Amino acid sequence: MNILIIGGGGVVGQKLGRLLATRGHLRGREITRLTLVDIVDPAPIPDAAVPVETATCNIADPASVAGCIGADVDVIYLLAAIVSAQAEEDFDQGYAINLMGTLNVLERARALKTSPVVVFTSSIAVYGGEVPDPILDHSFLNPQTSYGTQKAIGEMLLTDYSRKGYVDGRGFRLPTISVRPGKANRAASSFMSSILREPLNGQEAVCPVDEDFLHYYLSPRKCVENLVKGAELDAEALGQNRCMMMPGRIWSIRQLIDAMTAVAGPQPAGLIRWDSQPEIKRIVSGWRYDLRPEKSLKLGLSADDSFEDNVRYYLEDDRPAG
Amino acid sequence: MNILIIGGGGVVGQKLGRLLATRGHLRGREITRLTLVDIVDPAPIPDAAVPVETATCNIADPASVAGCIGADVDVIYLLAAIVSAQAEEDFDQGYAINLMGTLNVLERARALKTSPVVVFTSSIAVYGGEVPDPILDHSFLNPQTSYGTQKAIGEMLLTDYSRKGYVDGRGFRLPTISVRPGKANRAASSFMSSILREPLNGQEAVCPVDEDFLHYYLSPRKCVENLVKGAELDAEALGQNRCMMMPGRIWSIRQLIDAMTAVAGPQPAGLIRWDSQPEIKRIVSGWRYDLRPEKSLKLGLSADDSFEDNVRYYLEDDRPAG
Repeated sequence: MNILIIGGGGVVGQKLGRLLATRGHLRGREITRLTLVDIVDPAPIPDAAVPVETATCNIADPASVAGCIGADVDVIYLLAAIVSAQAEEDFDQGYAINLMGTLNVLERARALKTSPVVVFTSSIAVYGGEVPDPILDHSFLNPQTSYGTQKAIGEMLLTDYSRKGYVDGRGFRLPTISVRPGKANRAASSFMSSILREPLNGQEAVCPVDEDFLHYYLSPRKCVENLVKGAELDAEALGQNRCMMMPGRIWSIRQLIDAMTAVAGPQPAGLIRWDSQPEIKRIVSGWRYDLRPEKSLKLGLSADDSFEDNVRYYLEDDRPAG
Repeated sequence: MNILIIGGGGVVGQKLGRLLATRGHLRGREITRLTLVDIVDPAPIPDAAVPVETATCNIADPASVAGCIGADVDVIYLLAAIVSAQAEEDFDQGYAINLMGTLNVLERARALKTSPVVVFTSSIAVYGGEVPDPILDHSFLNPQTSYGTQKAIGEMLLTDYSRKGYVDGRGFRLPTISVRPGKANRAASSFMSSILREPLNGQEAVCPVDEDFLHYYLSPRKCVENLVKGAELDAEALGQNRCMMMPGRIWSIRQLIDAMTAVAGPQPAGLIRWDSQPEIKRIVSGWRYDLRPEKSLKLGLSADDSFEDNVRYYLEDDRPAG
């Protein structure tokens, strides 16, 4: 079993690499090779039980893609993307990476004539616009960002290439990942992790929305577990649409904070400064959270049981030492 | 008002060109230039009341697209496509024309920085797969052909380029056009026109399905009237999704034939030979016909009043002399 993770340098790619390297098998076969590639060389996987390599790959460049997708690959995880805010600011770059990059990977996979499994991460950013709530398995995709558009197009391509037998694709629309490790960034959703992560690290954080703000969340640990399950699903079970929501759970900001307090005591919540920011509120109020992922739940994917779990996972997996 | 019809050599492009050339105005302004382009030089428009030109254009080639979309264009009709059966057989060509061609046109329009109106013809082939009937304005697009996939992607691109202000796009999913003039072709839907057209021309035709087969139809005359209305819609009225169904009507084969008999007498129906063809039946039984185009009806687009009208339009507009 030869696995390639494209986007292996990101939060999800690194955690997926670690899980696979510990697990040692996928789709009933021993992992004999695990390669992580990204636009910059990904960090190596510590204590790997399987052979792990890292390399650079620019998916916008077909030659680079051909160089990193070898003929003997069995499973390709395509996680690489220009994120939402960047794709909105740099229209050309967003289309080059998120649309043409996806097409380059699918074309290379098709050229191999081995129909490799391709696991593609889409996003709940494909939802929005005129579509009524709740979001069901057959709700229209009406993205209101270029990132969401590019992900929706990637889904369409994945299903068509699978229908033709060129790849065995499966795509999952990721909820907002929280608690996300690392640093705050300029994404409008950044606070959805930072109001927990920074206080748990003993630092102050700003919450720009009200405590009754609702959103749809999944822990990074559960996300990569679902990505492993996603690769292992029977193609026959996927039906005529290879893409689906990945399960998450709806929580309010108040519920997130109460969960943090339940796990880590009252001190962290005191480090949250409430500073209402109308522009952030305007953006995130257009995001959908009432999602009903019936198909993926039926196929065995799952959400977190409680946000307390999300907090515990952060403390166990990601909190910096000291 | 400078109008360009890309795909101006096809059945819809030619009829649209004639309607615009007779009408003489669009969006409240006099038509000062009307250009029809296609992969081969389109037929000229007879008795045009406005200046008409024709030229060749290969939309798969960005340089060709730049050559035919001048800086002073106001309205671009993008009708050109590799049709369903051909896109299914020639995967590369389908993507080159239907996906990259659409992208090339949108990119050229964006480069002009004038936000021209772009009217895009999609197809009810975007529907299928797992999506429950009836098809509503917010039904998921789950195409089961590469052609349908490419059209669905074109829709997504049109909405995103419009959201960014690069074009003022509007897309319409065309019903099956009948009675279509010209010759029978290898499309699985070919019989939906030929069982009427050939008998009306005094020739025999084969019907490969049962008389209770239901489908969703629109006359070519009504189609181009809707495409004119589509260009004239206020951008504000279109909302956050620039693409919608074009209205059609559901009829059985029996209703089509009865309408022909009502208009043209009993002789034509006698020229239909019933020859059940399992492969054609298999393909067309997967097509959706229970469509509810609420949005476009509300915006003033319309379907035919009766299939008798479709028959009359064919006799008035298209039946070869003699």
